[in-house]
Amino acid sequence: MPPITIRRITTRDARFQLKPGEGVDAVHTRPQYAYAVALLETDSPLTGTGLALTLGEGNELVCSAIQMLGETLAGCELEELMSRFGSVFHQMAEHPCLRWLGPHKGVVHLALAALTNACFDLWAKARRLPLWKLLLELSPAQVLALLDLSYLEDVLLPADVLSMLEGRLKFRPTLEKVLSGGYPGYDTSVGWFNYSDATIENNVLSALENGFHAFKLKVGSPDSARDIRRAFRLREIAGEDSFIMLDANQQWSLPRAVEICSQLARMNPFWIEEPTHPDDILAHQALVQKAAPLRFAVGEHLPNRVVFKNYMQAGAAHFIQVDCTRVGGVSEFITISLLARRFGLPVVPHVGDMGQVHQHLVLFNQVALGHQALFLEYIPHLQPYFVFPARIKDGLYQVPQEPGSSSDLKS
Amino acid sequence: MPPITIRRITTRDARFQLKPGEGVDAVHTRPQYAYAVALLETDSPLTGTGLALTLGEGNELVCSAIQMLGETLAGCELEELMSRFGSVFHQMAEHPCLRWLGPHKGVVHLALAALTNACFDLWAKARRLPLWKLLLELSPAQVLALLDLSYLEDVLLPADVLSMLEGRLKFRPTLEKVLSGGYPGYDTSVGWFNYSDATIENNVLSALENGFHAFKLKVGSPDSARDIRRAFRLREIAGEDSFIMLDANQQWSLPRAVEICSQLARMNPFWIEEPTHPDDILAHQALVQKAAPLRFAVGEHLPNRVVFKNYMQAGAAHFIQVDCTRVGGVSEFITISLLARRFGLPVVPHVGDMGQVHQHLVLFNQVALGHQALFLEYIPHLQPYFVFPARIKDGLYQVPQEPGSSSDLKS
Repeated sequence: MPPITIRRITTRDARFQLKPGEGVDAVHTRPQYAYAVALLETDSPLTGTGLALTLGEGNELVCSAIQMLGETLAGCELEELMSRFGSVFHQMAEHPCLRWLGPHKGVVHLALAALTNACFDLWAKARRLPLWKLLLELSPAQVLALLDLSYLEDVLLPADVLSMLEGRLKFRPTLEKVLSGGYPGYDTSVGWFNYSDATIENNVLSALENGFHAFKLKVGSPDSARDIRRAFRLREIAGEDSFIMLDANQQWSLPRAVEICSQLARMNPFWIEEPTHPDDILAHQALVQKAAPLRFAVGEHLPNRVVFKNYMQAGAAHFIQVDCTRVGGVSEFITISLLARRFGLPVVPHVGDMGQVHQHLVLFNQVALGHQALFLEYIPHLQPYFVFPARIKDGLYQVPQEPGSSSDLKS
Repeated sequence: MPPITIRRITTRDARFQLKPGEGVDAVHTRPQYAYAVALLETDSPLTGTGLALTLGEGNELVCSAIQMLGETLAGCELEELMSRFGSVFHQMAEHPCLRWLGPHKGVVHLALAALTNACFDLWAKARRLPLWKLLLELSPAQVLALLDLSYLEDVLLPADVLSMLEGRLKFRPTLEKVLSGGYPGYDTSVGWFNYSDATIENNVLSALENGFHAFKLKVGSPDSARDIRRAFRLREIAGEDSFIMLDANQQWSLPRAVEICSQLARMNPFWIEEPTHPDDILAHQALVQKAAPLRFAVGEHLPNRVVFKNYMQAGAAHFIQVDCTRVGGVSEFITISLLARRFGLPVVPHVGDMGQVHQHLVLFNQVALGHQALFLEYIPHLQPYFVFPARIKDGLYQVPQEPGSSSDLKS
């Protein structure tokens, strides 16, 4: 394969109007879905595409930050870059001036996510492999070289990463089985916050027909009775065997979360997601203890590996919903997945990318890291805008075969 | 006083070149000091000025975010606005789209800091009072109405705030004593990271002559021996009676912090600042326990009241260095100061504003909240650029008398 050099970093501010009610939750009351897109132009016909999700307003800030941070990548030869991506990531994340705007959070870290994701997309396209396959073909040492493990020295050393990856090599034969069957998606789009009871009922019945057995309902109403009524009603419609996830999108205070969770427990939710502020690790820890045996999921708004580490150390969550369009992209996603393995926690990504990139990453997690939870959020609203939209059949994510990370948007 | 209405929000991207070595630490290796300035133009001759600090590159992102978030303020009458500022702050902080870029951290929260600070500056100018005096003239209920206490319900309720403020009213007579004498500054500018031993020695001797008895040294060298040698040398120069603060600016991993702190303990630092990543609450907690009785300071990079609450609950810091140019401005500064009182911890602000606004806020903290640590960082590098630069005499901050928050920059 001839060398490919990154020539220029450009951006696209891509915003998509949703239909009324789509994407609305207790906190995000008038979303667009928008991508700050990092585009890596090269001296070949290939372009790397990387996404960071925003809700519309402010997307241009992330695009500007992509330009600022991306300068590091101009002129880099791709294979050389990816052979030491962990140190390049570190250099961008530790930019001596832009770091002040985080560190490792907010607009600049979203920009880093888009840039990182674009590097991985370009790499997979250059090797003519779907991203999951590229990642699975790497040696443990090559995977390690992708990662920035700084600030994890108390729990995850390079030697730990190598031994975790090497220890899984003998299980690779299970790969075939996984890949042939696809893996279940769960449908977030049935139960947006403002949907009427009748709409939710119709959505769930039609999702059941399409093979889904797991659904999400948005809660966090000012009126707890509404949340409770809708949750129990969804259980009735979906049946005892379905998984139901309840998502408060950070709307509750800790005392309120404790109170309402005690009532929601009886409809047996699979998890309760983002009960309160994502920075409030100790509130989550207290809630986990007070509301046992209810299980809690966080990650949609956790910005980096350090915060995830704290959640894991504190026993403050049961499901790790890391999102590669929020943390610093594919490589920090892998780092956090390794952390989760270390702490024995399942990774079930939040899909700011609508599952496009994460459909690759959960395969890597299962096969290379031994994560058991092969289960992925599904949100169909942006399907028409992707060149290769994720394919779901009978409720199962089909394994993508096109080269790259499935991130390209139609122009 | 006639009503004043905010007509227009504008911004200034103000960047100041430092002299070689100034402002350099282990992590921020080529700083400018820059302010994203929020300017509130009114239907009167008065303009409100609010600052958020950055290190130069990326400052324009904060300016853009100020414009986006600031729309809420256009058309507001000032006294009406400040009579319910807590709810206006909440509305801006919970912006349903821009919130995604945080929440409550990074570029958008820095923008909120600048806007909040501009509101308080304008308010004090309109009342022709220095900010400290305006704040001290407010009733407990009026102070409460300035605050957004959401996500603190587990530790600080409105009734708690009122009783804390009311309980202090009888101590107000101590005010006169405080105000006449000034209060000590500590000199951060003696020991920047790349200063030679000789420069530091000269700086400390000259600061001692100017009445300072407290100094900061930047540590975090790749070579621990350098840090240790310089710290012990500074103790020799400054004498046993001086306070010496060591600042690692997040450079250490937890294991490295434990190791080096055990050696630094013997030169008796007053505190060790930002030993590791500011998101790593549990690493700070572990360090506090392992390095006892050493004391640790954090806050320069903690973005909001929720993170501060977690640090306090975890017993992960001894000194709270909240900075009103990092958290959401004056009102969140006060909220965090109230939290600190609740947990019995001293507030010694980091001065992203070079002490201009904080010289007012520490007076409020002492008189209205009973914070005992009347002690404030001093950095002189931007003195020539402020209209009313903070005045230090014999190492003591002199109490500002000009109306406003002392934030105006020369044009």
